[in-house]
Amino acid sequence: MLASGLAAGGVRSAGAVEPPEIPPSMKIPGAGMGEYGSPAKYESKVTRTLIRSQPGTTGSGASRTPLESLEGTITPSGLHFERHHSGVPDIDPAQHRLLVHGMVKRPLVFGVDALLRYPMVSRIHFLECSGNSQLLYQPTPPNVTAGQTHGLVSCSEWTGVPLGVLLEEAGVDRSARWILAEGADAAAMSRSIPMAKAMDDAILALFQNGERLRPENGYPVRLFLPGWEGNMSVKWLRRLKVVSAPVMTKDETSRYTDLQGDGKSLMFTYPMEVKSVITRPSHGMTLPGPGLHQISGIAWSGNGTIKKVDVSTDGGRTWAAAPLVAPVLPRALTRFRLPWRWDGAAAVLKSRATDDTGAVQPERDRFVAEHGNNAIFHFNGIQAWSVAAGGEVKHVYA
Amino acid sequence: MLASGLAAGGVRSAGAVEPPEIPPSMKIPGAGMGEYGSPAKYESKVTRTLIRSQPGTTGSGASRTPLESLEGTITPSGLHFERHHSGVPDIDPAQHRLLVHGMVKRPLVFGVDALLRYPMVSRIHFLECSGNSQLLYQPTPPNVTAGQTHGLVSCSEWTGVPLGVLLEEAGVDRSARWILAEGADAAAMSRSIPMAKAMDDAILALFQNGERLRPENGYPVRLFLPGWEGNMSVKWLRRLKVVSAPVMTKDETSRYTDLQGDGKSLMFTYPMEVKSVITRPSHGMTLPGPGLHQISGIAWSGNGTIKKVDVSTDGGRTWAAAPLVAPVLPRALTRFRLPWRWDGAAAVLKSRATDDTGAVQPERDRFVAEHGNNAIFHFNGIQAWSVAAGGEVKHVYA
Repeated sequence: MLASGLAAGGVRSAGAVEPPEIPPSMKIPGAGMGEYGSPAKYESKVTRTLIRSQPGTTGSGASRTPLESLEGTITPSGLHFERHHSGVPDIDPAQHRLLVHGMVKRPLVFGVDALLRYPMVSRIHFLECSGNSQLLYQPTPPNVTAGQTHGLVSCSEWTGVPLGVLLEEAGVDRSARWILAEGADAAAMSRSIPMAKAMDDAILALFQNGERLRPENGYPVRLFLPGWEGNMSVKWLRRLKVVSAPVMTKDETSRYTDLQGDGKSLMFTYPMEVKSVITRPSHGMTLPGPGLHQISGIAWSGNGTIKKVDVSTDGGRTWAAAPLVAPVLPRALTRFRLPWRWDGAAAVLKSRATDDTGAVQPERDRFVAEHGNNAIFHFNGIQAWSVAAGGEVKHVYA
Repeated sequence: MLASGLAAGGVRSAGAVEPPEIPPSMKIPGAGMGEYGSPAKYESKVTRTLIRSQPGTTGSGASRTPLESLEGTITPSGLHFERHHSGVPDIDPAQHRLLVHGMVKRPLVFGVDALLRYPMVSRIHFLECSGNSQLLYQPTPPNVTAGQTHGLVSCSEWTGVPLGVLLEEAGVDRSARWILAEGADAAAMSRSIPMAKAMDDAILALFQNGERLRPENGYPVRLFLPGWEGNMSVKWLRRLKVVSAPVMTKDETSRYTDLQGDGKSLMFTYPMEVKSVITRPSHGMTLPGPGLHQISGIAWSGNGTIKKVDVSTDGGRTWAAAPLVAPVLPRALTRFRLPWRWDGAAAVLKSRATDDTGAVQPERDRFVAEHGNNAIFHFNGIQAWSVAAGGEVKHVYA
């Protein structure tokens, strides 16, 4: 089913033996250097896409990473997805303060300059909004691009201070089990964080892909909880209150609970489950003809490391393991690629990820049967793309 | 000498037990979402720095990555260093062609869309201009920032087609030993590439940090030779001619040869040798006072993987091994960090990298004694920063 050869004879255009005509770019000097670069003007269509927003508000909504236009695993910060509850606050880092208080021996206030003097760690991790792929709860395929269905996931190198270091300095009460994290945006985005996560791998992130955080990602400092639903990685962090029990904030009661098919809700569903999506080919593309094509996609798991991605081109009847691009890192986007010799007949492409806990990404039918379709969060079912005989690629349920 | 404890009591500002005053950012809705993001306005000074340019030309010169402002290992593409010989050409990818010819059975011409259909690899690698740190050949310290001395090195995730795949398809003559690579800029930047490197790990790079190459990094396609001097990774690649011997282009005879102390020149010095630099603290910073500080820096080797970075705070009399940030990847920037309890007395900071070939970064004195100071390329001596009793950090030779 899946070709393993690498020769791509179908795409070469042979014949020319002389250099192509001297292009215009060689006849005049080019542009000068710049202080901060931007993508080529020819890539101006590669942008985040705003799917919908709350009526009557500014900045409340989400923008999605155009996954179908990207390769590798790092998301350029300019294309990192956004999800705001009341827009992007303008915060002067010289004025910003982070308070650590509650069940601690020594309440502490930190300026950003103080935080920058602490020990730091750097880790490559994905961040995924719990509402990513929510369109796939719908009974009919939404017929949009990979970015529009799955683009609320991005991956960056995050650098910051281990949260445990600051909590130890504040002298956390050993009986405290939770922390309230509050953002300095107008929504005062607030979540209750289990102490165990805070002391394990939580970071106060100050840098993203080498430079300081972008405003839309929490400048000047955000909480970062590897593998957990994105809204808990509270942006524009201003307050950490050590407490004994969950605070039941508006953001974890009226929102970010998962209404199941039976009318009950799941609360405190933290890790993002094992998931994958083929980004190329995907909805909206047209294969130029039969022959060798490269299937490329991303997989991730909030519970650990991707162990395997299986790819099917016949709608899930048969599968082949796709090579994973090294380094395969825990709680990071993992790129998989597989050559595919398309015979020109209708086909259905799927990918199915497995992580190192043994969890396997479920088929959409099974996922919806288990969880119903009242929910809008934590969808991790298998995504299918149909390829028509003419080469047109579309989103399907299959 | 080097404190190993992580407590940073010196920087906390205790006392407050109530939340800080509600900041202005919580009182009004924030800004809306954007199609392509930018750094915070408060970071507007974090830019590439243009040190010098060829008089009378546009775009001929270099701009440097502000290493002292960055953390982690990925360089945001907007801050990737630039080195152009006649500016940044404006190339329409729909019009661009890459010719593979010379000693091949089947000369081939590729459009960018054709290249995008080939098998791809993704790898995190540094890129360093051979002229990086050339100021340190000078007899007196240049007294500039870490970025201004060492900022012609950056690190990205590069994605593209293994060059060997295209060469095999063209049917390379087995007796051919070299390839001429030519850029589509007005300088027609041209270098001779050994066939062994081309068939080993050379890439035709199409993506950088997830998105398509930036114009200043070779859009729409560049050669990428991991670990080798940057100019050989020819940008805006338009031609690969398979040949039997080096072509002796202007760019490898009048330029990019290394004039030694004895008046002879080294040619074809390809790999960038093992090297490191402390980025924080570094020239231009002032330590706010005695107490715990974090030393942070980067190390890299074009010959392999960083095995060890030793740090000294007494000018090289004693050394301590700094922990390396995982994953430590071959031919990639490697971050090292070490806590340092400064007693307030004058100090001299140095870092010394060792790679997995056993090569050790030399002291500047020894490097200059061996190579003289006629050269401007391939400087990899140890960099020293002095810390004055008042906390002022300066570039010194020590």
